[in-house]
Amino acid sequence: MTGNSESVEIVEGAPRDGFQSIDKPLPTEEKIAIIEALLSAGVKRMELGSFVSPKAIPQMADMADIAAHFQGRDGVRLSVLVPNARGAELALKNRYSELVFVFSVSEAHNQNNVRRSVEQSLQQLRAVVDTMAGDANFRLRVDLATSFDCPFTGTVPLEEVRRAFAKAIAIAPDAEFALCDTTGRADPVTVKTRFETVMADAPDGTGWAFHGHDTFGMGVANALFAYQAGVRVMEGAAAGLGGCPFAPGATGNTATEDLYFAFQQGGIDTGLDLEKLLAAADRIAALPGGKTGGHLRLVPRTRAYA
Amino acid sequence: MTGNSESVEIVEGAPRDGFQSIDKPLPTEEKIAIIEALLSAGVKRMELGSFVSPKAIPQMADMADIAAHFQGRDGVRLSVLVPNARGAELALKNRYSELVFVFSVSEAHNQNNVRRSVEQSLQQLRAVVDTMAGDANFRLRVDLATSFDCPFTGTVPLEEVRRAFAKAIAIAPDAEFALCDTTGRADPVTVKTRFETVMADAPDGTGWAFHGHDTFGMGVANALFAYQAGVRVMEGAAAGLGGCPFAPGATGNTATEDLYFAFQQGGIDTGLDLEKLLAAADRIAALPGGKTGGHLRLVPRTRAYA
Repeated sequence: MTGNSESVEIVEGAPRDGFQSIDKPLPTEEKIAIIEALLSAGVKRMELGSFVSPKAIPQMADMADIAAHFQGRDGVRLSVLVPNARGAELALKNRYSELVFVFSVSEAHNQNNVRRSVEQSLQQLRAVVDTMAGDANFRLRVDLATSFDCPFTGTVPLEEVRRAFAKAIAIAPDAEFALCDTTGRADPVTVKTRFETVMADAPDGTGWAFHGHDTFGMGVANALFAYQAGVRVMEGAAAGLGGCPFAPGATGNTATEDLYFAFQQGGIDTGLDLEKLLAAADRIAALPGGKTGGHLRLVPRTRAYA
Repeated sequence: MTGNSESVEIVEGAPRDGFQSIDKPLPTEEKIAIIEALLSAGVKRMELGSFVSPKAIPQMADMADIAAHFQGRDGVRLSVLVPNARGAELALKNRYSELVFVFSVSEAHNQNNVRRSVEQSLQQLRAVVDTMAGDANFRLRVDLATSFDCPFTGTVPLEEVRRAFAKAIAIAPDAEFALCDTTGRADPVTVKTRFETVMADAPDGTGWAFHGHDTFGMGVANALFAYQAGVRVMEGAAAGLGGCPFAPGATGNTATEDLYFAFQQGGIDTGLDLEKLLAAADRIAALPGGKTGGHLRLVPRTRAYA
């Protein structure tokens, strides 16, 4: 895990998983300014938001305006989360060319999160794939939420994760797949072994990502153990903003700046500019009502970081 | 890293590294009650305090009384930290049969911490070993403080750690050795590679321990990566109490309950009773003026832990 050739891609999720945790709608220009600040820090992949019902998450009502602003931005992959075919159509209409489709391995969480059965969500995934068919520029990531733990039913059996993944990859063979620790209750050894098991089920060349929360303080360790399993795409949120509104007790996403510290100082390149990242994180932390976390931003800065 | 045969020994350090961070002297009976609570949680090794000048750390003035209380306690290893031969003599006089001798790899930190050069500390180590000679029941641990980072000089070169270890093991060939992340600024990959390098310098059978702080949120990940290197003894402090008074900016030790969660849920047995551990941690967290941390104690307890 050392050497110059190693690198990891950190997908910034504060605008998507983070902003939705803020009750009061943020002005669109404030969102855009924060997204610009994150891009200036070297972020190459970012989830800008969700195409969901504004009734469910009012914070996401301005996705079209945000899309318009970032239209044609080169060198970055800006995605949007969708829970159904309707969201995918809206995203396409607004010229987002990268989607994250989310469903939960846990039936109870899927019902709470997107008000569908897992089987119905998989039908929606099929419709999304059909909608995209023929567009060679289109990218899809499939998030398997509650791949470790469900806030309603506890530990999610590994066999359920394998079954859900098998169904999803049969529908979307070219997608990247994320095992998501929605509640932050996964432990590092389990993260590694689950990834190893599910990755062994997949064809070579399948892309993998890990999405984690820091509820139990395992966020950084979980990401590193996912890396050891071969995962090279990690999700974080600057300032540790976030917390799933449908996962009671879950705190924010693992802080991007803590992931930076763990990987970069360990010789695994993130491509990020720390000073600019911390500046963006400070701006995020100043948002009214946001729950933030992370460590690096809060340590007295007596010395520069490697 | 899975399977029933795996286990880790967590050395509880709240009474030693933690209590010294509390300015106002704690009543001896309060200390004893907390130590008893930790023992009832299944703690099998604990650092009870330090034999240092009461002028430097007034909190440790009652070590003799604490020793008297725990005299002859079976099935547990209760140690005391000493920075010099005088401390070792006092410890022996008070019938502590296990000592932790501490010196810093970094010259600057050693001067600040124990007011000696590293060479002078090594002479003290020799005197401690001589003092113990002939007592077959005696155990010694040598803590190499600032084995990764020094609050005054930054990253400590690996070669300095190797040299310091070579000198120390030449003096104390039967000791257990700890590489200590005194400031909490070590990253997991570096923890693993440093342990692997220094352990390769040592004879087979040498015992190893890791002492970490959670300043940068790396505490749990660092311990897990030390485990991967082969270290089977980890130091923690219940409630994350602590912070070196001579390492500016360092926050508390990695919380014992977070180490419990990371190891136990990953199938690596700690031998601890979580409910009792959390009760002890809550009591520690209620101490006036203590800086605490950790995660597990603070998550809403909607479900039991595995």
